[in-house]
Amino acid sequence: MKKYVYYFGPQGTEGSAEMRNLLGGKGANLAEMSRIGIPVPPGFTISTAACVEYFKLSKLPDGLMNQVREGIMRIEKDMVRKLGDSKNPLLVSVRSGARVSMPGMMDTVLNLGLNDKSVIGLAEETDNPRFAYDSYRRFIQMFGNVVYGINGIHFEKELEKKKEEANAVYDNDLRAEDLTDLIKKFKQIFKKQTGKAFSQDPWEQLTDSIMAVFRSWNTKRAADYRRVNKISDDWGTAVNIVTMVFGNMGDDSATGVAFTRDPGTGEKRFFGEFLKNAQGEDVVAGIRTPQPISKAGRTSEDQITLEEELPEAYKDLEAIYKKLEKHYRDMQDMEFTIQKGKLWMLQTRTGKRTAMAAIRIAVDMVEEGLISREEAIMRIEPDQLDQLLHKRFDPKAKKRLFGVGINASPGAASGVIVFDPDKAVAWAKEGKSVILVRTETSPDDFHGMVAAKGILTSRGGATSHAAVVARGIGKPCIAGAEKIEIDYHNHLMVSNGITLKEGDEISIDGSVGEIYVGSVSNSPSEITAVVLGQIKPEETSIYFYYDKLMAWADEIRRLGIRTNSDTPHDSRTARKFGAEGIGLCRTEHMFFEGDRILAVREMIFASDSEGRKKALDKIRPMQQKDFEDIFKEMEGLPVTIRLLDPPLHEFLPHTNEEYEELSGRIGIPMEELMLKGRQLKEVNPMLGHRGCRLGIVHPEITEMQSWAIFTAVANLIRKGVNVIPEVMVPLVGFKAELDDQEQIIRRVAEEVQKKTHIQFEYKVGTMIEVPRAALTADEIAETAEFFSFGTNDLTQMTLGMSRDDAGKFLPLYVERGFCRVDPFQSIDRDGVGQLMGIGVEKGRKTRPKLKIGICGEHGGNPQSIELCDELGMNYVSCSPYRVPIARLAAAQAKLKHQKQQK
Amino acid sequence: MKKYVYYFGPQGTEGSAEMRNLLGGKGANLAEMSRIGIPVPPGFTISTAACVEYFKLSKLPDGLMNQVREGIMRIEKDMVRKLGDSKNPLLVSVRSGARVSMPGMMDTVLNLGLNDKSVIGLAEETDNPRFAYDSYRRFIQMFGNVVYGINGIHFEKELEKKKEEANAVYDNDLRAEDLTDLIKKFKQIFKKQTGKAFSQDPWEQLTDSIMAVFRSWNTKRAADYRRVNKISDDWGTAVNIVTMVFGNMGDDSATGVAFTRDPGTGEKRFFGEFLKNAQGEDVVAGIRTPQPISKAGRTSEDQITLEEELPEAYKDLEAIYKKLEKHYRDMQDMEFTIQKGKLWMLQTRTGKRTAMAAIRIAVDMVEEGLISREEAIMRIEPDQLDQLLHKRFDPKAKKRLFGVGINASPGAASGVIVFDPDKAVAWAKEGKSVILVRTETSPDDFHGMVAAKGILTSRGGATSHAAVVARGIGKPCIAGAEKIEIDYHNHLMVSNGITLKEGDEISIDGSVGEIYVGSVSNSPSEITAVVLGQIKPEETSIYFYYDKLMAWADEIRRLGIRTNSDTPHDSRTARKFGAEGIGLCRTEHMFFEGDRILAVREMIFASDSEGRKKALDKIRPMQQKDFEDIFKEMEGLPVTIRLLDPPLHEFLPHTNEEYEELSGRIGIPMEELMLKGRQLKEVNPMLGHRGCRLGIVHPEITEMQSWAIFTAVANLIRKGVNVIPEVMVPLVGFKAELDDQEQIIRRVAEEVQKKTHIQFEYKVGTMIEVPRAALTADEIAETAEFFSFGTNDLTQMTLGMSRDDAGKFLPLYVERGFCRVDPFQSIDRDGVGQLMGIGVEKGRKTRPKLKIGICGEHGGNPQSIELCDELGMNYVSCSPYRVPIARLAAAQAKLKHQKQQK
Repeated sequence: MKKYVYYFGPQGTEGSAEMRNLLGGKGANLAEMSRIGIPVPPGFTISTAACVEYFKLSKLPDGLMNQVREGIMRIEKDMVRKLGDSKNPLLVSVRSGARVSMPGMMDTVLNLGLNDKSVIGLAEETDNPRFAYDSYRRFIQMFGNVVYGINGIHFEKELEKKKEEANAVYDNDLRAEDLTDLIKKFKQIFKKQTGKAFSQDPWEQLTDSIMAVFRSWNTKRAADYRRVNKISDDWGTAVNIVTMVFGNMGDDSATGVAFTRDPGTGEKRFFGEFLKNAQGEDVVAGIRTPQPISKAGRTSEDQITLEEELPEAYKDLEAIYKKLEKHYRDMQDMEFTIQKGKLWMLQTRTGKRTAMAAIRIAVDMVEEGLISREEAIMRIEPDQLDQLLHKRFDPKAKKRLFGVGINASPGAASGVIVFDPDKAVAWAKEGKSVILVRTETSPDDFHGMVAAKGILTSRGGATSHAAVVARGIGKPCIAGAEKIEIDYHNHLMVSNGITLKEGDEISIDGSVGEIYVGSVSNSPSEITAVVLGQIKPEETSIYFYYDKLMAWADEIRRLGIRTNSDTPHDSRTARKFGAEGIGLCRTEHMFFEGDRILAVREMIFASDSEGRKKALDKIRPMQQKDFEDIFKEMEGLPVTIRLLDPPLHEFLPHTNEEYEELSGRIGIPMEELMLKGRQLKEVNPMLGHRGCRLGIVHPEITEMQSWAIFTAVANLIRKGVNVIPEVMVPLVGFKAELDDQEQIIRRVAEEVQKKTHIQFEYKVGTMIEVPRAALTADEIAETAEFFSFGTNDLTQMTLGMSRDDAGKFLPLYVERGFCRVDPFQSIDRDGVGQLMGIGVEKGRKTRPKLKIGICGEHGGNPQSIELCDELGMNYVSCSPYRVPIARLAAAQAKLKHQKQQK
Repeated sequence: MKKYVYYFGPQGTEGSAEMRNLLGGKGANLAEMSRIGIPVPPGFTISTAACVEYFKLSKLPDGLMNQVREGIMRIEKDMVRKLGDSKNPLLVSVRSGARVSMPGMMDTVLNLGLNDKSVIGLAEETDNPRFAYDSYRRFIQMFGNVVYGINGIHFEKELEKKKEEANAVYDNDLRAEDLTDLIKKFKQIFKKQTGKAFSQDPWEQLTDSIMAVFRSWNTKRAADYRRVNKISDDWGTAVNIVTMVFGNMGDDSATGVAFTRDPGTGEKRFFGEFLKNAQGEDVVAGIRTPQPISKAGRTSEDQITLEEELPEAYKDLEAIYKKLEKHYRDMQDMEFTIQKGKLWMLQTRTGKRTAMAAIRIAVDMVEEGLISREEAIMRIEPDQLDQLLHKRFDPKAKKRLFGVGINASPGAASGVIVFDPDKAVAWAKEGKSVILVRTETSPDDFHGMVAAKGILTSRGGATSHAAVVARGIGKPCIAGAEKIEIDYHNHLMVSNGITLKEGDEISIDGSVGEIYVGSVSNSPSEITAVVLGQIKPEETSIYFYYDKLMAWADEIRRLGIRTNSDTPHDSRTARKFGAEGIGLCRTEHMFFEGDRILAVREMIFASDSEGRKKALDKIRPMQQKDFEDIFKEMEGLPVTIRLLDPPLHEFLPHTNEEYEELSGRIGIPMEELMLKGRQLKEVNPMLGHRGCRLGIVHPEITEMQSWAIFTAVANLIRKGVNVIPEVMVPLVGFKAELDDQEQIIRRVAEEVQKKTHIQFEYKVGTMIEVPRAALTADEIAETAEFFSFGTNDLTQMTLGMSRDDAGKFLPLYVERGFCRVDPFQSIDRDGVGQLMGIGVEKGRKTRPKLKIGICGEHGGNPQSIELCDELGMNYVSCSPYRVPIARLAAAQAKLKHQKQQK
C-alpha cells in the first residue's frame, strides 16, 4: 500500500522541510516545526501524490481514507478528543498546500467536526455557547460554499436579516440563540441548494472536504495563476488536516503574525501584530486594529502589547522566533495562536520583503555568521536590485490609469506630454519636465529623448529603439502601448476613454509599464544618488549594504561586466556602476548629432567614391573627438567600437523641407534626391544593406571610421592615456566579409602609426549576430580576435521574428506558453542558445583563447547571463543602469554552476 | 633532384592523361596520344610544380634547365635536327597549358630556335626562303611581344610600311628580300625597346620564353578569368615544348581541325575543315575559306576535300579519329598538321557541343556499347537540358541590347511592352503578344503575368515573386534589371540611352538575362512541344534521345521529384514532365483570383472572429473547388498543401478607389479602413505576422482552409478518385505552434469525416524554414509527420539577407567570391546546408522514417539537389519546367555519391 498520509505531532513526525514536493510548502514546514520541537497543533498531511492519483483515477486512491482514519486517531490520542464527540470534540482544519505558495488560490475548510452533537460539547467545554454556535454556522457556510459550491450570497442574506432582527451591528453582537436560529436557516439553505441534508457525519464531511481541496487545484483562477507564474499543472496540491486551535476563547487567548526582522527595512528587530480574543479572520476583516507584539514596537502610548498582556506566551514566542530563524537561516513570517495561554505555531515561512530589506538582511546575516556570502548573493533577486536603482512612485499615491505597455526601461517619471522631439528640447530648456510620446522613435529623436524625463511609445517592444536608448541613458520608458491612439496632427492621444493633449501631465512607471493621468509623487534612488556622487553614502540607510553585497558578488563572479555606451556621459555612469569596459559602442548615434547629419546625407547622395570621401572627411574630425572623449572616460579599460551598422536610409531626410535644405546645400536637384531616397528604401531593412555590407560596398566609410578611431588612439597615447581599442565589424555572415573589412582596418591602423609615429595595440573582431556566423564560427575565428554575440539580431533571425512586428503575436505566444519567456527579454535557450553554443565551441576550436562576449540587450538579463556563464563566455555587456544587476547575476550564475557540478 | 620535365615521343613517353594536374590538360593529352601510338611531334612538358616553385622562389628552380637541355637533346635525336643548327635546325613551340583549359588567356611562343644562322638552314631545307624568313620575322615579333612586352604596334607599323613599299596586299605577298629587310627593322625595334640586342642564342631564347609563359599565369586577364571560373590561383601552368611542324611547306602540306561527331547535332559522322599549304594562324585570320575534310561533308560541288587531295593522310586521320574516340570514350575535337604528306596530331580534347548534341552523343554511345548508362547520365549538364525545354532566340539574329538583369526564368519571348497587369490581359485578349514590365510584381499581378509572354522587373532577384511565379508557369522572366528606370506615370522606360514607350516591342532572353529592343526571331522547344502533346515525337530529331536519357535517369535516381504548383494547369504540365506529386501547393495565390480578394479584404477588416468567419465562408467553397481540381490532376500522387503564408497586408487594397469600393461593400468608413490598413504595415514583413502566426492568432483561417481541403478530399473519394493529401503548416519555429495548428486541422478532419461519412487518410507536417525549427527538429518531429525545407526563407534568415534587398550587395559578393555561389540559386552548403543537416539528423532521431523534402526554389538547382541526396532526403520539389532537370540531377547526385563511397 502506498503511503499518502504523513503525521506530525508528539508521536513522531514523519515529514520534514526537505519533503516540500511531496507535502507542499505548508505541510513540510508544519512537519519541520514539529520535528524541532516547536509547539504545532498535531495533524497530518495528505501528499501531492494522492492528489495526482485522484485526478488520474477520478476518485480517491484506494487505501487513502484508511490512512486518514489512522491519522485522525493519532490526533485524537494527542489531544484527548474525538471527532464528532459531544464531550471533547476534535475540530480540524482542511487546507491546501502546494509545492510553491499560491496565496488565496485554493480552498480551505475550517472547524470541521462540528455537528448538532459536538457543538454542544464545544459550548460546554469553552463555557462559551456564542463562540460554539458561531463556529458551527461558519462551518456550515464554508463547507456549503467550498465543498458544494453554494453561492455565499444565500448565507450572507440570512445573516444580514438576522442582524437586523437582533439589532446587531457586527456579527459578534449576535447572541447564542440568534445563532442557533441562524444554523437552522443555514441548514435549510444547504438542503435547498444541494438537494440533500447537511451531513452530521464528520467522516463524510472530511472525505468531501479532502476531495474539494484537491479539486480546487484545477479552478480557473488557480490554473491562470499557475500559467502566469510558470508553475506546472502536474504537481497537484497536498492537503493539511490540523487540529483547530482558537484564539478567541477569552482574554487568555490571542492570534497574530510576526516577522523575525523588519520586512520593510530589513532592520534586525522582532516585529509583529496580534489581536486578543480573536480568530485569524478577525485580523483580515479589519474590524479591530491589531496591536504591536512587543513594547519596542509600540508606536503610540495607548497601544497594548503581547509582551505585557500575555508575558509567558510572549516569552515562548520570542524563543521560538529565534529558534526558527536560526533553523531556517532566513527571515521568517509566522502565524501563531494562543489558546487559553498556550502558544501554538500555525505556520512559518520565508518572509517576503522589500528589495532594501532583502539586501540588508542578507548582509546582516553574513555578518552574524548565520549564512555564507554565497548564500547572501543567492538571496537577492537581481530584478529587485533594479528597483533600488531607479526612481519609483509612492506605492500609496492615488493613480488614474491611462494605459499600459511594455516595461521597457525601469524607473518612474512625471511630466507634460510632448509629441515632438524638438519641442521636448525647447520645453526642457524652459525648465519643464517632459515626457516624450511617439508612435515609435528613430535615431532622429535622440535629442528629444535625452531632454525628456521619460519616453512612451505606442509601438515596438522591449528591444525597440526607444527601449534600447532609454535604458542606455537611464530614463524610464514604456514601449508598445498599443491601445493608445496617438494623433500627431491634432497633438493629442486617446486611451481608456480619456483624451490627453500636448502639455497635459502624465506619469509613467517604466518598471511595470503603467501610464497614469497627471503627476504622481515619487522618490529618488538613494543608491544611484551615491554612485553618481550626488549624496554621500552615510546619508542613506542602504548604500552600505548594497556596496558590501556587490563587493562579494565581484569576488565570486567569473564573467566580466561591460557596458553598452555611445557617449562619454553613459560611459562615466557605467564605470561608476562598476563596468569593466565597453562591450558595444555604437557609432551611428554619433551620425545624427548637430550638423553631422547633413554631412551624412551628403555622403549618401554622392554619386561616386570621391564624393562620399569628401563628405566623410567632414565627419571624421567630429567622430574622432567622440572616440577620444569615450576613450578618456574608459582609460585603462577595453572599448569595443562597432563600425556603422544601420542601413543608410535611416539617415535620409524625412520631410520635403529637409530635402529642400539638403538640395540647396549640395546642389543636387530635389527631385533627384527624392528619387534616390526612394530607391534606398528596403522591403526588409533588418535583412538588407547594413552592417559590414555597407563598408564592403562603400569602403570609404570603414576607412573614415578607422581613421577616426586610430587617430583618437594615437592622440591619447601621446598624452599618456592608456587606451585599449577593439574594432568590431557588424553583421558578418561569411569569413570573407570580415577579411575584407579587417584589411581596411589594419591598413589604416598602419598608416596612422606611420603618420603619427606612435605605436599602439588593437584588436579586430566581429559581432556574431547572423545565424550563419555562429554556424561557421570556426572559419570566422581564423580572422576574428574576439566575438561578441549580438543576440538582438541573432534572436530575430533565428526565430524569424522582427521585434518591431512581433507585437501582433508574441504576447499571445508568451501568454500561452508557446515560448517559455519573451525571447527578446531572455535568450531563447533551445534555439538561440543552441546556436550560441555552436558558435562558442567552433570559435574556440580554431582559437582556443578567443575572447567572447555578448552585447545584445540580453546582456543585462539574469537568465541570459546564466547562459553566458554556462557557455564559458568572457563577459557580458549591458546598459549602464543594468551593470550592478549583471554583476550580481554573474555571481549567482557561477554559484549555480558550481552547485550543479557538485 | 626533383623531376620537372616529362618527355613524350618515340623514346618512351613519361606522362599520361591521368597526370593532368601535373602536366596540364594539353601536356597530358599530348603524352597520352604519344603513349597510344598516335603521331605527335616529339616534345616534353615542364610540370605545373615547376611553375609553382618559380613563383615561390622568384627564379627558375635549380636543375630545371638541365632537365630542359636533356629534353631538347632527346627531341634532337628523334628529329635528327639540332637547335640553332644551320643545316637541320630544330624549331619548337613553347605553350602554356593549365590543369583546366583557359583558352587564349596565357602566352605562346612559336618558331623558337630561329636565328640568323638557322634561318638559312630552314630556307635551304624547305627550298622556300620566303617561308623561312617569314617564320623568322614572326618569331622576333612574337618573342619581343610575349617575352619582353614590346607593344605589337611597333612591328605592325614596319610591316605595313614594307607592304606599301612592296606593293603587297597580304603578308604572303612579301618576297624573301622584303622579309630579310623587315627582319633587320624588327631587330632594331627590339634593341630600341629593350636596350639589348635580339638574342642569337636559342638557349637564352628558350629560358626567357619558359619564364614568360610561367609569368603569363599571373596576368590580370588570366587572374580575372580564374576568378570568374572559380579556378584556384595556386595551380600554376605547365609549359609544353614541342617540335614545330609546318602545314605550309607546299601542296603536300596542310592544317586543320576535326570532330569525331557533329558538335551541333550530335550526328555520328566525321566532321572537320582544313586548309592546304597553310598554318593554323591562317585559318584564324580568315583570309582563305577552309574546306571540308571528307567528301561526305561537302556542301557544294566546287569544294575540294582532304579525302581527295591527300588521301593517304586522310586515311591515317580517319584511323586516328576512331582510335582517339574509342580511347577517350567521348567525342574529340582535334588539331592536325600535315607536313610534306606526313600527318601530325597537335592536340585532342573532349569537344564542346550543343545541348542537343550532348544528349544524342551520350545516348548513341551507350547504344554503341562505348559508355555505360551511368556515364551517359553524367555527361549532360542539367542546365544544358534546361535550354532544350524553352524557346530560344536565333543565335545569329541581330540584336540591340536595351539592358541586362538576372536570368530569373529561362526561355525567350518577344512582345509589346505593358506596364499594367490589367492592360496585359486586355491586350492579350486582342491577340497581342505582351511583355509585362513592372518595377516588381506582387500576387495582384498574377493575371497579368499569366497573360504575358514574358515578365521583366527592375527590382528583385532570382527568387523574387516575379521569378518564382514565372518559373511556375514556364514563362521567361528577367528580374532585377536595376539600370532600367521605369516611369509608370508617363508609360515609358529608359535604359542604355534608349527610351521605350508602352506598346513598343522588346525581346527578353530569360536564359541569359538580356533585354533587346524590338522583336528577335526565336525557335520553339521541340521536347516541350512533344511533352505537352502539341507535336508527335517522330516530328523531332531529339525527343527520342531525351526520352531514353530520362528513363535511365529515373532508373538510377533515389530522390523523388515533386513539383511546386498552385493550379490544375501547372500540375498537369508538371505531371507530364515527370513530377511524382506536389511538394508545395501555395494557397495564397488562390486568394487573389476574381472576387475572392474582396472577401479576403472583408475578412481582414472584420472586427471580430465572427466577422472573419463570415467572410471566410465566402471563400471556402471556391478554395474547395481549387483543391478538387488539383487533386484530380494529381490522382494517385501526394499533394502537399501549405496553409496561408503571407502577411495579411499583402492583400490590402492599393488605391483609394479600391478602398472606396471596399468601404461601400462592407459598410466600414473609408478612413477607418485606411487607418487599419496602415496599422497592418510591417517594418520587416518577412519576419512579421505571417505563416502559422496567422492561423494561431486567427484560427478561423486555418479552420476554413482545413474544411476546404478535407471536403475536397471527401468529395473526390466519393467519386472514386484516389487522393493523397498532406497538410503543411508554414513558418513553424516552436513545436507548440505546430501543435496548435495540428489540433485544428485534425479536429476539422474528424468533423468532415463524421459529416460526410467518408474516411480518408492524410498527413500533417511542417515547413522547416526558420533556423530555430532546424535546431529543434527533434521536438518538432514529435508532431510533424513530414518536413519540407523551405530553403528560400531558411536562406534569408540564416544569412540575414532579404532577397528583395540583397541586390545592392550580393552581386558584388558573388563576383568577389565572398560566397561561392549566389545562395538564392544554389544552397549555401556551409551555412544553410549545415543547418539542414542538423534538421534532418534531429528529425530522424525522433522519427526514423520521417519523410523529408525540399520545396524552396533550390529544389530545381542541380548542386542543391546533390546536397539533398547527400542529406538523405526523400524528395525535391521544383517548378514544373525544372522537373526534367531535377530528374537528371538526382540521378547524377546518386552516381556521384556512389563513386565517393567506393
